[in-house]
Amino acid sequence: MKPKLEDVAKLANVSKTTVSRVLNKRGYLSQETIDKVNDAMKALNYKPNSVARQLYNKQTKIIGLLFPTVANPFFGELVEALEIKLYKQGYKVIIGNSMNDPEKERHYLDQLLSNQIDGMIVGTHNQNIEQYEHTQLPIVAIDRIMNEDIPIVESDNYNGGKLATERLIEQGITKILHIHGPIDLETPAHRRKTAYIETMKSHKLVPICYEVDFSLTETNKKAYFKEILSKYPEIEGVFASNDVDAAIILQLAYEMGKQVPKDFKVVGYDGTQIMRHIQPDLTTIIQPIDLMADTALDILKKRLENEPTEKEYVLPVELWEGSTS
Amino acid sequence: MKPKLEDVAKLANVSKTTVSRVLNKRGYLSQETIDKVNDAMKALNYKPNSVARQLYNKQTKIIGLLFPTVANPFFGELVEALEIKLYKQGYKVIIGNSMNDPEKERHYLDQLLSNQIDGMIVGTHNQNIEQYEHTQLPIVAIDRIMNEDIPIVESDNYNGGKLATERLIEQGITKILHIHGPIDLETPAHRRKTAYIETMKSHKLVPICYEVDFSLTETNKKAYFKEILSKYPEIEGVFASNDVDAAIILQLAYEMGKQVPKDFKVVGYDGTQIMRHIQPDLTTIIQPIDLMADTALDILKKRLENEPTEKEYVLPVELWEGSTS
Repeated sequence: MKPKLEDVAKLANVSKTTVSRVLNKRGYLSQETIDKVNDAMKALNYKPNSVARQLYNKQTKIIGLLFPTVANPFFGELVEALEIKLYKQGYKVIIGNSMNDPEKERHYLDQLLSNQIDGMIVGTHNQNIEQYEHTQLPIVAIDRIMNEDIPIVESDNYNGGKLATERLIEQGITKILHIHGPIDLETPAHRRKTAYIETMKSHKLVPICYEVDFSLTETNKKAYFKEILSKYPEIEGVFASNDVDAAIILQLAYEMGKQVPKDFKVVGYDGTQIMRHIQPDLTTIIQPIDLMADTALDILKKRLENEPTEKEYVLPVELWEGSTS
Repeated sequence: MKPKLEDVAKLANVSKTTVSRVLNKRGYLSQETIDKVNDAMKALNYKPNSVARQLYNKQTKIIGLLFPTVANPFFGELVEALEIKLYKQGYKVIIGNSMNDPEKERHYLDQLLSNQIDGMIVGTHNQNIEQYEHTQLPIVAIDRIMNEDIPIVESDNYNGGKLATERLIEQGITKILHIHGPIDLETPAHRRKTAYIETMKSHKLVPICYEVDFSLTETNKKAYFKEILSKYPEIEGVFASNDVDAAIILQLAYEMGKQVPKDFKVVGYDGTQIMRHIQPDLTTIIQPIDLMADTALDILKKRLENEPTEKEYVLPVELWEGSTS
């Protein structure tokens, strides 16, 4: 009798779904499982039919999006842009928020993988998420360093950090603070900080950096920034690595009676549509959100069709000349 | 021989999955399909075993969230609050953005239902979405009128509209405009408009209302608001039914050389964390986002456990006293 999929499953001591996944290279699989299933197929001389192969290989037309939090306008607008573009191309999305929590990212990843999605766009920043190593799924990363096989889309973080820092220095100030995201995250956004430090040093100025996690509530962030500004009353300007932080610092400066931009200057980062409309005074670096979304989708499409892609796509940033610096 | 699930499927001319869904009252099913399957079970004298019943009835610990767009801070923060609270209770979420498009909502709904979720929280506003009538899934609506069976969580929209309008009138102005969302959406948020109209009339003032869709880009909104303000140069104040619109109108007023609050006053609506921190000057009505999320989860839990719930949960709003009115 011709061996069936369930015979393979029985011999390998795994579920039929797992055998299908191995056949179709889908979902999370440990090397041990892959080996067990392949050994069982060999032992039984099992020839997968196209139905078994297609069962789990059919297109679901669903793309998973995994980002830190949609409550931050940058991720909110990026997710919205991706979702609208994907929908136009016949895809729907499922979205998970990882909140910079590796455990949560792992859970979401398992869930997304078990939902039989066609591919994934990941903008979270946690390291050591093993599952990414094992999945055969087409993945594109945004602003995130993953592994050799996963292409990354980013804006020109170094140039952005340089433009922001130079803008502050050009105004004739020397005591400039930089607020940045957690340094243990694997993101090219750290280049904003590198650019700040190098630009400060090239002007013989002393860099001062503070780390802040964007999963803090706005109230806690504000208290933290107040502590920093009270500790360094001589600070004349701040370069914040996102606009929400920049806007909170700006409010704090007003509350502390500082004149902006006369005694105190602020430059932000991201330049989302919403921030540019509700707070156009804030000088910031504009990330090309729409172009980032288009590029991520182009790459994802290539990955879905097994076409080669570059390892890294760096897109241009722009200075938004507000009045806060 | 004892009839099997596949025999029922064959006779009813539907898939095995459909039979399971009928057995377990899950997912989208037309009455026709339910009848066909029930007739086939009767004809074959099929007795579902508990395995068949459980196959699709097991908890997936996934909740679907369907909202207009996470790029609006109110929905961004609401989705974030729901997601954090659900995650703490062992649930993950999948999120769809409907962008006020009924077709898109239908697609997302089909996708969510086919993903075997345990329940759903819906904050979209499209009417005539038939699928909601047929699903047996526990659903809770936020700010949305659906049908008799679906409980609704909302903040006190009437009182919010009244507070906002009275705040403007108290400042001694009489020419007050109201900007609101699309009137063909089925949402109790319309009560903000009703309250505005009734409050204006009770003070013998003439209400002037303009509709704006929040799926417009900020740039298009701004152009539209500019047109309105140019058409009514005598306007002394605006009550906008969300803070993003209010902030854009505020910027526009500055650009048109108006003194705020001296010649021109603005009151917004929503009072999200992010807006209160980056634009604390904006007078607005605070919706209790965290309480709305808690309430929606309590109700969802009751629905999951087949406990009775109320039809409507109205939560208190609060005035944020900024300096724009």
